[in-house]
Amino acid sequence: MNEFTPTPRSARGAYGIAGEYVTSEVIYQKESASIFSRRWLCAGRLEELDPKSSCLPISLENQSLFLIRDESGIVRAFRNFCRHRGSQLVTETNCSSMGKRIQCPYHAWTYSRSGDLTSAPNMADDDNFDAKSHGLMEVCCEVFGGFIWINFHPEESVSQWLQPIAQHFQDWQISDLRITHELVYDVQANWKLIFQNYSECYHCPIVHPMLNRLTPYQGSSNELDEGPILGGPMGLAESSQTMSCDGKFAGQPIGNLNPDQLRSVYYFTICPTMFLSLHPDYVLIHRVERIDTGNSKVTCQFLFPPDTTEQQTFAPDQAIEFWDITNRQDWEVCELAQRGMSDPAYLPGPYSPLESVVAAFDRNYLLELDLKSGD
Amino acid sequence: MNEFTPTPRSARGAYGIAGEYVTSEVIYQKESASIFSRRWLCAGRLEELDPKSSCLPISLENQSLFLIRDESGIVRAFRNFCRHRGSQLVTETNCSSMGKRIQCPYHAWTYSRSGDLTSAPNMADDDNFDAKSHGLMEVCCEVFGGFIWINFHPEESVSQWLQPIAQHFQDWQISDLRITHELVYDVQANWKLIFQNYSECYHCPIVHPMLNRLTPYQGSSNELDEGPILGGPMGLAESSQTMSCDGKFAGQPIGNLNPDQLRSVYYFTICPTMFLSLHPDYVLIHRVERIDTGNSKVTCQFLFPPDTTEQQTFAPDQAIEFWDITNRQDWEVCELAQRGMSDPAYLPGPYSPLESVVAAFDRNYLLELDLKSGD
Amino acid sequence: MNEFTPTPRSARGAYGIAGEYVTSEVIYQKESASIFSRRWLCAGRLEELDPKSSCLPISLENQSLFLIRDESGIVRAFRNFCRHRGSQLVTETNCSSMGKRIQCPYHAWTYSRSGDLTSAPNMADDDNFDAKSHGLMEVCCEVFGGFIWINFHPEESVSQWLQPIAQHFQDWQISDLRITHELVYDVQANWKLIFQNYSECYHCPIVHPMLNRLTPYQGSSNELDEGPILGGPMGLAESSQTMSCDGKFAGQPIGNLNPDQLRSVYYFTICPTMFLSLHPDYVLIHRVERIDTGNSKVTCQFLFPPDTTEQQTFAPDQAIEFWDITNRQDWEVCELAQRGMSDPAYLPGPYSPLESVVAAFDRNYLLELDLKSGD
Repeated sequence: MNEFTPTPRSARGAYGIAGEYVTSEVIYQKESASIFSRRWLCAGRLEELDPKSSCLPISLENQSLFLIRDESGIVRAFRNFCRHRGSQLVTETNCSSMGKRIQCPYHAWTYSRSGDLTSAPNMADDDNFDAKSHGLMEVCCEVFGGFIWINFHPEESVSQWLQPIAQHFQDWQISDLRITHELVYDVQANWKLIFQNYSECYHCPIVHPMLNRLTPYQGSSNELDEGPILGGPMGLAESSQTMSCDGKFAGQPIGNLNPDQLRSVYYFTICPTMFLSLHPDYVLIHRVERIDTGNSKVTCQFLFPPDTTEQQTFAPDQAIEFWDITNRQDWEVCELAQRGMSDPAYLPGPYSPLESVVAAFDRNYLLELDLKSGD
Repeated sequence: MNEFTPTPRSARGAYGIAGEYVTSEVIYQKESASIFSRRWLCAGRLEELDPKSSCLPISLENQSLFLIRDESGIVRAFRNFCRHRGSQLVTETNCSSMGKRIQCPYHAWTYSRSGDLTSAPNMADDDNFDAKSHGLMEVCCEVFGGFIWINFHPEESVSQWLQPIAQHFQDWQISDLRITHELVYDVQANWKLIFQNYSECYHCPIVHPMLNRLTPYQGSSNELDEGPILGGPMGLAESSQTMSCDGKFAGQPIGNLNPDQLRSVYYFTICPTMFLSLHPDYVLIHRVERIDTGNSKVTCQFLFPPDTTEQQTFAPDQAIEFWDITNRQDWEVCELAQRGMSDPAYLPGPYSPLESVVAAFDRNYLLELDLKSGD
Repeated sequence: MNEFTPTPRSARGAYGIAGEYVTSEVIYQKESASIFSRRWLCAGRLEELDPKSSCLPISLENQSLFLIRDESGIVRAFRNFCRHRGSQLVTETNCSSMGKRIQCPYHAWTYSRSGDLTSAPNMADDDNFDAKSHGLMEVCCEVFGGFIWINFHPEESVSQWLQPIAQHFQDWQISDLRITHELVYDVQANWKLIFQNYSECYHCPIVHPMLNRLTPYQGSSNELDEGPILGGPMGLAESSQTMSCDGKFAGQPIGNLNPDQLRSVYYFTICPTMFLSLHPDYVLIHRVERIDTGNSKVTCQFLFPPDTTEQQTFAPDQAIEFWDITNRQDWEVCELAQRGMSDPAYLPGPYSPLESVVAAFDRNYLLELDLKSGD
């Protein structure tokens, strides 16, 4: 284990959230209005939007959007329906042919890559028709750290919002990394249980014996312990280079990381859609999507420096297997918690000092839920 | 193309219907009360009720009924439950044995083909039991044009209601035609989107290139442009005899059609359950059934004169394939519209002059929905 | 048929229950509050809880519980969630390892077999933490007749409640019997239709020709005709020894049954979860579980004296096949009734004198539903 001394933790006497927060349809809708429609949501990596064909349909919070590079190369996001009769415009099937203009498959209304309506057959007969007011509906979209971020009602820029971990994005050169592998999971648990699970290592000794050998659970520290972005480092055991089944590097250490960074793994939750796990040699991301009160989809991607895959030393299998095992162990206990908390008789219990970040997650969640929903 | 000059069209500045009309459960129920429980609904062809066994279970608007010929040969419709403990009476399995009387499979209460309770074992012990008041519940049923029509609360006879197209029923001798083929589709779209789609050929150039060659989209005219029954003819291109992949007749021209009728295809929507497509040599019907807000079932039947199938010239494959292709193209754009209109941010757009019948369909739909639901 | 004279029956002019009782979600929830949360529910046989490992997860009314023998051997029931973060504790997979103590799979909080919290890692740091107030939540559990009974809000002991049939439990030595076979069914009908179906043999001549030969439907009598426990004997036809396809005994007659008991089959409904069918040579039980308004699960178990299976004369196949056939015939008409009663136009019909017990079931059900729900 490396030299840093873990900060003393406290959950300040907090108790967990009530069962209705993982079962109630009303609270689910309230989250839509207060959290998911006002925070920056991760919509994928820039590299997933092919710079040539430049058009990608995405689903975010059950809403259909598409991403496109406009004529000047800027990434923009539009609602995926035609302003005429509402037909969905971009699909998995037709997106490769939509690179230069967006043409509706129903009546051929056509839009530029900036969203302007450029052609609408037979509408010219109508003197009152104003093409300018029938452009595509745009949604706020920004790029940061190589990720595409969407916000339906932004209150600040994504760079302001991610300021608390901006230095980490820079140190790990996250903008330049490339996806080498992806794991996708359907988890039968509310999204918050997945965030809570990632926010503590109190469960590691019993749930993750392998992880606990690589990074003993007492050796964690908080850098950010209040607000929508939470987390900090865990020290690697002396025998471990990184998180992988054999404890050995998957790739070469990233860029100019300092000695502390090379002997730790940094874990951050970026509420409400993302976990960022910074290893000495790779970055792991979890994208969490709500499906309904009791179901979530988690997409887990491994990011390495762009030239890593060509290096002879590149050996990612032990890292991928490690995280696949660890993820599945986590989903199992998240699902048990979902089931137990769904009992109408459930009463929340007290947090231990090792769950201080879970308590902080809850505080921020409840604050956002109440402040912004207006009811 | 034949000689008639298309009427100038206008959608009168109308806009489409709001997204809630294809997503809201409340509106769906309101439609049940205001439209589906008061209009004539097509329940199939008379020939589907075998004149010998004479008993057919049908499902209409999620209600279970059965059709039967009574002792005098008249077709009647009854609610499909026993007046004792409510057991369903007629099923696909037992209907062939129910020809002469309807016997409940649970406790053997038995009804005549006119719906009278003729036997109820052990009920005679009860002096107060009045068999006369426990006959089957009847639903209004009429036959017109060879179709069986059901109406839960009729305000006029089916012949009065279909008066605007009665001459077409006569000219095409529709009562006498026979089903030769059937296509069935599950469409993931609200029933109204399927009606709207059938009501305009603005989408034909981009969605139906083959259809557009046979009947160019500009060559359409409206006979009926207000009310529950809408539509009119489209002129056949010079090289086309009928609608089929090769443009050639599937059967011999029907009866005594006049030259205009022989060079056109007539399309009518009969709200809320039927499309009627009159070709020179055959009649195509679409029966549309609501399943829920976002799903419909469409049954497509090809009707030919009774002796056609024995004629050497009978070659229906090109017509069947043509309509199967065309139907699938339509369902695809209906489903895209359903998905796009389901976005909470969707705002209806303006109709083009080519969508005048769609606008008329909407007007009639909204009028009926409001006038009759009483809320 | 044996000597007893059937009691004259009357349904007192009663009519069936309205359709909403088998379709309404509101009534379903009202039943939860008024009936299922206050009556004794059968949770299985004591023998299903292995006396060694002593831990069994069960689901009752969609609530997850587990059964366990405490240190003194007493069977107890606990809600199946941890008092910390709510994780489900006992699963099908882990129950065999939970015999001596219950350890939460998430953070290793550990409970004794009496439900006391005996260990909670890292919680000792919190001076305010009171382990005593974080024991498992217990639910009332009693054993009677070899069955485990659960009651969420008991008003009397299970032995008081089952007093009306206590003598039958004793005569048939039900505590000592053992399960030899089990049949499980998913029935697409409301639980009450299954109770009603079991409560009359008016349907037997038409639905169960085989059963009707063994026990003619007129030969039934009521011992209990009011309250939550209802039923009585049916006389066996002269040629029948018991209920089985060939009418022959499956095992030797049970203990010291008297001549009447040896020539009858006794049928009792124990509302809301159980049917008890006492044969001369075996006991059949049906456990009925609500799934939703229109679906139920029925578990059917055959109980024989413990040494029967070793006897040369043990031949249960004809009895099992008989009841499997009879059960399926019953589920079919229950499902027909569910479908017919779901028609919004359904009106209940009058009961025949042969349905006096159905009428009594309804009376008790409606009384309990209204008295106890408090709305």
